[in-house]
Amino acid sequence: MAFSEFRPLHDNSLIDYVKSVPALSSKIANDFDNLFVKEVGDGNLNFVFIVLNSAGSFVIKQALPYVRSIGESWAMTKERSYFEWLALKEKGRLCPEHVPEVYHFDRTMSLIGMRYLEPPHIILRKGLVAGIEYPLLAEHMADFMAKTLFFTSLLFRTTSEHKRDVAEYCGNVEMCRLTEQVVFSDPYKVSEYNRWTSPYLDHDAEALREDNLLKLEVAELKSKFCERAQALIHGDLHTSSMMVTHESTQVIDPEFAFYGPMGYDIGAFLGNLILAYCSQDGHAYQANDRKAYKEWILKTIEDTWNLFQHKFTALWDEHRNGAGEAYLPAIYNNPEVQLLVQKKYMTDLFHDSLGFGAAKMIRRIVGVAHVEDFESIADAAKRATCEKRALDLAKTILKERRKFEGIAEIVSAIRKHES
Amino acid sequence: MAFSEFRPLHDNSLIDYVKSVPALSSKIANDFDNLFVKEVGDGNLNFVFIVLNSAGSFVIKQALPYVRSIGESWAMTKERSYFEWLALKEKGRLCPEHVPEVYHFDRTMSLIGMRYLEPPHIILRKGLVAGIEYPLLAEHMADFMAKTLFFTSLLFRTTSEHKRDVAEYCGNVEMCRLTEQVVFSDPYKVSEYNRWTSPYLDHDAEALREDNLLKLEVAELKSKFCERAQALIHGDLHTSSMMVTHESTQVIDPEFAFYGPMGYDIGAFLGNLILAYCSQDGHAYQANDRKAYKEWILKTIEDTWNLFQHKFTALWDEHRNGAGEAYLPAIYNNPEVQLLVQKKYMTDLFHDSLGFGAAKMIRRIVGVAHVEDFESIADAAKRATCEKRALDLAKTILKERRKFEGIAEIVSAIRKHES
Repeated sequence: MAFSEFRPLHDNSLIDYVKSVPALSSKIANDFDNLFVKEVGDGNLNFVFIVLNSAGSFVIKQALPYVRSIGESWAMTKERSYFEWLALKEKGRLCPEHVPEVYHFDRTMSLIGMRYLEPPHIILRKGLVAGIEYPLLAEHMADFMAKTLFFTSLLFRTTSEHKRDVAEYCGNVEMCRLTEQVVFSDPYKVSEYNRWTSPYLDHDAEALREDNLLKLEVAELKSKFCERAQALIHGDLHTSSMMVTHESTQVIDPEFAFYGPMGYDIGAFLGNLILAYCSQDGHAYQANDRKAYKEWILKTIEDTWNLFQHKFTALWDEHRNGAGEAYLPAIYNNPEVQLLVQKKYMTDLFHDSLGFGAAKMIRRIVGVAHVEDFESIADAAKRATCEKRALDLAKTILKERRKFEGIAEIVSAIRKHES
Repeated sequence: MAFSEFRPLHDNSLIDYVKSVPALSSKIANDFDNLFVKEVGDGNLNFVFIVLNSAGSFVIKQALPYVRSIGESWAMTKERSYFEWLALKEKGRLCPEHVPEVYHFDRTMSLIGMRYLEPPHIILRKGLVAGIEYPLLAEHMADFMAKTLFFTSLLFRTTSEHKRDVAEYCGNVEMCRLTEQVVFSDPYKVSEYNRWTSPYLDHDAEALREDNLLKLEVAELKSKFCERAQALIHGDLHTSSMMVTHESTQVIDPEFAFYGPMGYDIGAFLGNLILAYCSQDGHAYQANDRKAYKEWILKTIEDTWNLFQHKFTALWDEHRNGAGEAYLPAIYNNPEVQLLVQKKYMTDLFHDSLGFGAAKMIRRIVGVAHVEDFESIADAAKRATCEKRALDLAKTILKERRKFEGIAEIVSAIRKHES
């Protein structure tokens, strides 16, 4: 360990640190003469350094004890780095194709050394804003979610393993509390952190705070988020939590990881794809009306759920006679009952995903943290039109989610909402 | 501490032990000359000694590392004693009227020293078999459940306190696993531990193992039991877990305590009262047809839920502006929405309670551990008639629980099932 107590690294101290850590310095062949170092953290919470030379590369991510984008006034435990590391290791073990390799962890320094996702990897959200299609995205994300959720659930594990890990991740409570506040609370009350495209959405923001039926549904989702330890979830699986190329999808930033409801991850991804869809009209211009791109997003939404459902149930079938304790083979011992429980499980998960996805959409329009999909639409009136469409759609999905029987019906609802 | 490692106490070693523990010896004024010591544990899991003289008294409960009634072949962690002590302290703090005082705990010895519940206190189940009315039972149990469940839920507490305690009680996983096995698994599969009144119930036991819709519902209940950390529950709140007189109700034996679904406790109590009801015809004779007593049991079932609901919602109203994070007052800020969320919460809790209660009934008829209510009916045919009625009722309640809108409808269903 290079330092005996926490200190934020800067370019120079970073090099001293790397020199003292063989797991990192070996990645650049211990050559510090022609090193390229750049701080690239554009997130809200951390410093991220790229370190590379002709021999190799890595990334260093250091957590700071406050929310970087807001400042030192919003304190946040740097222990989140420990849970991010734990989750990266576990998810990387379960799905190495879609999780960057970890080289080093330093709990004192709240610092992770990991694979540098080289160009042309970019943050998926930036690709969505730029109108780039990723033909393997649905397949990859379905794969990541199916594996990481199935293998950490009671469909695969014993209750002993489950409770041991649930207890460990209870330690990440501060990150859970942040989610509780910004996703399930602030958008539905007056909060100094809330903002929206004013004055266009003033009435809509107020309407959220006065919608009793919506608040009833949000309470049910919050209760599931706080109480239901269904699987090890990423906890922040929006479209800026993955870096992509045409061939590669890499999920990063699981510092919100804990044992929670699976639908929170699936909903985060689907909800942010719907936001991307709703923002496209704001990015259209004469030479590119984005119509084909919007169709690709809808197809990706539909494929993601369908592929996820297929992969998840395939894992279930494959491990039906394994150690998982939710459905003992001696009880669920005929094809009819197996079909019955699987259908109910997937239907409940679908409705959870819709609910959480819609809640994640709402908070990105009227809450503290907005998305580049909308923020990059310079014309406020045009931006507000896109946002209002997304907000109305999210309210419908959240309230009516139990009526949707499949993802095709969601795609229809998205189309209908536009006309 | 009297001993440096665990050893089961016997009458003589017990006295040496007590001499070395001032918190206990002071209760009997350090007078060992005319001491009465008796082992009275009639439960499945522990040794229980009564220690008393003219100056005072106490009880010593020592956990053994196996299930006492089955023998050393069924191992069970004696660490359950630690969780029993934790839960006794916490529940005693929240509801001192109905939890015996704890004087001493020794983790090495898995030993709790606590109040001796003096005569005429008897185990409630024995009173129910004897046909004794307890006019305050519903009021007391409603009070105990409302306080212990409300004050350990997110209606009263912050998510930080919640996750800290959830993590702690994850350590009681072996006891949870025992419940998972004997309540949610064994009755629905072939198991060497299952038994029932044969041959009368052979077909009924088989029918349980072939009832796909019932298994579907049981899976949902098991998932809630394993995944939903709603409140600190007793975990074994049947009618042998309380000692009563006409004036007093004392809840004991919370060694199964953990953060689970509230309905599991409420259901355990109500389900065991329904078992008591169904057994009464087996205890009737010409001079006492038990008709009036059966009415008293029905009234107690109805009163328990209604009083619980009243007390629980009163606590909620009283603490609406407190630290509880489930329903922030800034969001749930008008009478309509407050009524809406409370109604939904109580309806969901009612249906959970019915489901868990029915599952607890079923396991007492075809599973490993039976109840004295039925076991004390010597005539097997008569016993089987009572048991079958209870089993059919439980299956109906479990499958149809979401259709019941209030406890009066359950009482009607119980009556109807008999005619």
